[in-house]
Amino acid sequence: MNDARPRARVVSRRRVYAGKVLELYVDDVIEPGEVRARREVVRHAGSVATLAVDDQQRVLLVRQYRYALDDEIWELPAGRIDGDEAPEAGARRELEEEAGVQAGQVEPIAFFHTTPGFCDERMFIFRATRLTLGPARPEPDERIELRWFTPDEVDRLISTGEVHEGKTLVALLLEQARRRSG
Amino acid sequence: MNDARPRARVVSRRRVYAGKVLELYVDDVIEPGEVRARREVVRHAGSVATLAVDDQQRVLLVRQYRYALDDEIWELPAGRIDGDEAPEAGARRELEEEAGVQAGQVEPIAFFHTTPGFCDERMFIFRATRLTLGPARPEPDERIELRWFTPDEVDRLISTGEVHEGKTLVALLLEQARRRSG
Repeated sequence: MNDARPRARVVSRRRVYAGKVLELYVDDVIEPGEVRARREVVRHAGSVATLAVDDQQRVLLVRQYRYALDDEIWELPAGRIDGDEAPEAGARRELEEEAGVQAGQVEPIAFFHTTPGFCDERMFIFRATRLTLGPARPEPDERIELRWFTPDEVDRLISTGEVHEGKTLVALLLEQARRRSG
Repeated sequence: MNDARPRARVVSRRRVYAGKVLELYVDDVIEPGEVRARREVVRHAGSVATLAVDDQQRVLLVRQYRYALDDEIWELPAGRIDGDEAPEAGARRELEEEAGVQAGQVEPIAFFHTTPGFCDERMFIFRATRLTLGPARPEPDERIELRWFTPDEVDRLISTGEVHEGKTLVALLLEQARRRSG
């Protein structure tokens, strides 16, 4: 570990909420540079998402209702990391549960923090190929529609703004770049 | 407005926290498809970010400490939308405050939700050109380092994972695609 990186000193910490999906803390801290601040922080287990690509270079998106937006959106199959599960294992699990897809090959293509101003969520994105399709097994509170999009359709989803979700936009832009350079 | 879109019915709503940056709600709801669920939702004012591009096609990133990660990261100049401020005005304001940069031209290049599984945050990204450089005026709790990155450096930031923040990755991938297609 590189411990030369700057770190905060915590003056006081208050856990405001601990739920199923997240915890909320309000911490009084002294940050590097002697900056005193009160920080509201959402702690999250981390997330995994998979760009599944079939033999015709089509990609799989799922459409589901998201309560936080009170709307349905197109997204990569994705979910929370389960306990100490490895990200790749979580990505394979979610792809099979949400979409019934098993992958012969899975490779990491991106890692990022979704919104580090107030949240520690990490997002691991994988690209899955050599796919086998089977029945989905969604959670009781999930209603999921599946659709495969051709490369031209992916270009359109990006340019029209029809995809407007962070992880999905990152993955589709990476796939677009891969196609254009390859 | 298109009210044909699916919407939830709220059975009960509890506001757990209301702070400076976010509010947290725990809602019992009936979602489309008669899915009963308890949802933890972070409500946020929305965010703006700007990809500033100079006459040599270099882009500006800022490096700052993020308490949620307890680390410094490279990001676009960005911030929260202030009240009923228009996103473009917020983007111009943050660019000038954080980086001392005024833009002769600003255009929207992306819109997305950062993490819709539990948060309603919207992210508006702009591309700024015809830049004038002046002194920055950061907030009292901000310590910000500025650096301009050449196109080759941007390609490296993406491929090495040195940029690992959602909005910044989206903006740099869009800029890379613009360069390669133009």
